[in-house]
Amino acid sequence: MSAIQKKLEAASEQYAASFDKGHLILPPAKKYLVVTCMDARIDPAAAFGIELGDAHVVRNAGGSAIEAIRSIVISQQLLGTTEVLVVKHTDCGMLTFKNRDAYSRVREHLGPPAHAELTARSFDFLPFPELDEAVADDVEFLRDSRLVPEHVTISGWVYDVKSGKTRRVPDRPRV
Amino acid sequence: MSAIQKKLEAASEQYAASFDKGHLILPPAKKYLVVTCMDARIDPAAAFGIELGDAHVVRNAGGSAIEAIRSIVISQQLLGTTEVLVVKHTDCGMLTFKNRDAYSRVREHLGPPAHAELTARSFDFLPFPELDEAVADDVEFLRDSRLVPEHVTISGWVYDVKSGKTRRVPDRPRV
Repeated sequence: MSAIQKKLEAASEQYAASFDKGHLILPPAKKYLVVTCMDARIDPAAAFGIELGDAHVVRNAGGSAIEAIRSIVISQQLLGTTEVLVVKHTDCGMLTFKNRDAYSRVREHLGPPAHAELTARSFDFLPFPELDEAVADDVEFLRDSRLVPEHVTISGWVYDVKSGKTRRVPDRPRV
Repeated sequence: MSAIQKKLEAASEQYAASFDKGHLILPPAKKYLVVTCMDARIDPAAAFGIELGDAHVVRNAGGSAIEAIRSIVISQQLLGTTEVLVVKHTDCGMLTFKNRDAYSRVREHLGPPAHAELTARSFDFLPFPELDEAVADDVEFLRDSRLVPEHVTISGWVYDVKSGKTRRVPDRPRV
């Protein structure tokens, strides 16, 4: 077993020893979903005040709402979620590269067949050049999507990894 | 502002007031990534012993490693991750429906154009009928993927939402 695996097992023993939330049910009690980044510096429960059992939390590189749409539809259609918050963050890795950079890296480190697989799938790493615009784009995407009904409340936010503070990104005027 | 949005703002004020981790850098210090479910009953930091800054955390409906592949490639190729842990959980919503059920729900609640969009995209909600098999499938998928190099350590786990305990899923023999 790796050191990381041992660490998980030890942490789990300790967590389970004082665990008293076994009564919680599947649907999120507060009926909301947070989409945020996989970044190691974000603890959504603590930073965004999510109590156990209250909300779905979806995380991926960049906090992409596009990639999260499968989870959002399941959450909304099957488990009753009525609100989605998209939280991206300062100093995000997705601001630092373009698809062609990631493609080159894959070709160099994983070889031409891995690179060819990316090309064949038109693989999009979903990087973005500007933070607030990326948040507003994701909010707009969800508002415009046929897969998300009008009555679902959507908002966009930015978490600051230096201060620990989260701020609202103003909505774009709707056309 | 919605009640949920107000709750986030209040929690953020409080979190930032005692925040002292602004020095953490982008790459995860312990070079690992956890893929788990969006389920509201999972707090990965507490349940799996992940300290702030240590690991990437990817979450989606079902804890799908297939959907997480974009994040895993970015984490591994651009940020130096060398280990991936896939953690699914008991009582998962993905055990309770099939693609055709989700398609019907969308048609009924969102209308024929939304349903047509799913069909046109061959949209897969990625449900699974059996938990341990789904974990083993994801581990195998990552081990066999050209986009994940051989030296990356992959393991599969199940979190029990009743007990708070996480157990290892045995590896399938490699052929």
